Amino acid sequence: MSLTVKILGCGSALPTTYRNASAQIVDHNGKLFLVDCAEYTQISMRKAGLRFTAVNNIFISHLHGDHYFGLFGLLSTFALSGRKQALVLHCPQQLKQMLTSEFSPVNIKELGFDVQFNILSDDGVNKIYEDKTFEAFSVPLRHRIPVWGFIFKEKMPLRNINKACIEKYKLSIAEIVSIKAGSDLYLEDGTTVPNKELTLDPPKPKSYAYISDTVCLPSTAGAVSGVDVLYHEATYEALLAERAKETFHCTTLQAAQTALDAGVGKLLLGHFSGRYQETDTLQKEAQTIFENTVCAYDGMELEI
Amino acid sequence: MSLTVKILGCGSALPTTYRNASAQIVDHNGKLFLVDCAEYTQISMRKAGLRFTAVNNIFISHLHGDHYFGLFGLLSTFALSGRKQALVLHCPQQLKQMLTSEFSPVNIKELGFDVQFNILSDDGVNKIYEDKTFEAFSVPLRHRIPVWGFIFKEKMPLRNINKACIEKYKLSIAEIVSIKAGSDLYLEDGTTVPNKELTLDPPKPKSYAYISDTVCLPSTAGAVSGVDVLYHEATYEALLAERAKETFHCTTLQAAQTALDAGVGKLLLGHFSGRYQETDTLQKEAQTIFENTVCAYDGMELEI
Repeated sequence: MSLTVKILGCGSALPTTYRNASAQIVDHNGKLFLVDCAEYTQISMRKAGLRFTAVNNIFISHLHGDHYFGLFGLLSTFALSGRKQALVLHCPQQLKQMLTSEFSPVNIKELGFDVQFNILSDDGVNKIYEDKTFEAFSVPLRHRIPVWGFIFKEKMPLRNINKACIEKYKLSIAEIVSIKAGSDLYLEDGTTVPNKELTLDPPKPKSYAYISDTVCLPSTAGAVSGVDVLYHEATYEALLAERAKETFHCTTLQAAQTALDAGVGKLLLGHFSGRYQETDTLQKEAQTIFENTVCAYDGMELEI
Repeated sequence: MSLTVKILGCGSALPTTYRNASAQIVDHNGKLFLVDCAEYTQISMRKAGLRFTAVNNIFISHLHGDHYFGLFGLLSTFALSGRKQALVLHCPQQLKQMLTSEFSPVNIKELGFDVQFNILSDDGVNKIYEDKTFEAFSVPLRHRIPVWGFIFKEKMPLRNINKACIEKYKLSIAEIVSIKAGSDLYLEDGTTVPNKELTLDPPKPKSYAYISDTVCLPSTAGAVSGVDVLYHEATYEALLAERAKETFHCTTLQAAQTALDAGVGKLLLGHFSGRYQETDTLQKEAQTIFENTVCAYDGMELEI
């Protein structure tokens, strides 16, 4: 089981020569989940060697251009590349309205593949994606327009069977499957071997949360409680708290406090204002509250 | 008087790691005319140190994404940067419909500056821009959707006065202005000094044409006749003429034949298919018909 985050862009709205705007890939065992899709995302994906066909789910946090203006090009490229497999867009209602309107930049009826819209809900934390081993949730945040964060979680894996027990009890395939799922073993002499004597703890499921863009919200810490890695926007340094408030963004210290309150494993700062070419100071500021903080950078790969 | 073309992108639709899609700057004495605006144009402009405020006219050839998907981000950035000056979009009708529709990616009513639409006409070559020293024309081309090329021309400058004559005839300011505009000089003794004895030829006005995307059209050579530099799409090598025809594009040899027929000074090839990382072969092919051919590359600056 492998869960990796690949940062394609961690800048904010104004373009810079040293950082792309928001886009990242959550890679779960080779399935790629694209989170936000700023201009240049398709080219960053090419540069990172990420296969377009491995992306079947795109999550758009909100409709500010630095989070989705790359979507038109990416959808067009999917079409030009002959894509047939369906794509799910987890997104605000307005994006569906835009893409299905008469004057949409891309005509989704003529792409050659099906685009399914999973409209994000304002009503608390919601499961928006699920497969056998992985799930994703949306979390309403607060910005100048409707915005959501996303949480990605591996499901609790089946328990690992203790191989010595297979031989000892001459376990059948059916018994092994049942024990891995949590059953005890019932022997012919009427005794019961408890599951925990037959199995080993599975690896802890991994989790990741993406929180951008938002004001500092008390509810965020609860929603992302205990995740292994929290990506949190830190558009501004602490000194610019007033500017952060005016623009509905967070400072380093607010991000760090959320990480602390949520008891996450690691804090990954991002969505930096263009005024910060170097981010060392931002990292140090956050570390005064939450030690295990690192700053994202374009091209970063973080295995969770 | 200076006229320079700056190539921001000269690739075609499918994204590559080595070439951006179509965008270029025509720089006339510091006034910047943006021609097409693919994704990443605003960042390329930043990298090239081109001032956003020097752009007051944007020319969009057609509505395939690799020619205009960077416009949404650029307009948003103009707004975020506090732009107040009006912007003219010389573009197909459908772009106006898109940008003024309810679900447009950018709300042009809230940009903070005026966007004026100059809708391109199907009816022959039309003057679409003019200032004291420079003008631009649209040229209908033929592609899978409506498309136009653009011609940029310096106006014929005033004649340069021969400085020795100022002293010799004790010319007044009014007389100098009149002579520069082409008048003869009438002396008090009734004789006339012809203008050509008082003035020197001004520098030849410079001109540039942008032709992309199109099938090979006989009418193009007439429209761009005699320009100093012709940028012409050459999406494919000659061997792929059938593919070029199917996709409504040109080959190297077709571009070169147009340059030859038009009697241009120099041919600049561009809009290369992603299959060509190196363009030496394309250049050599075109040179078999039109010797003074060069291939564009991202970052190229060509003084005309």
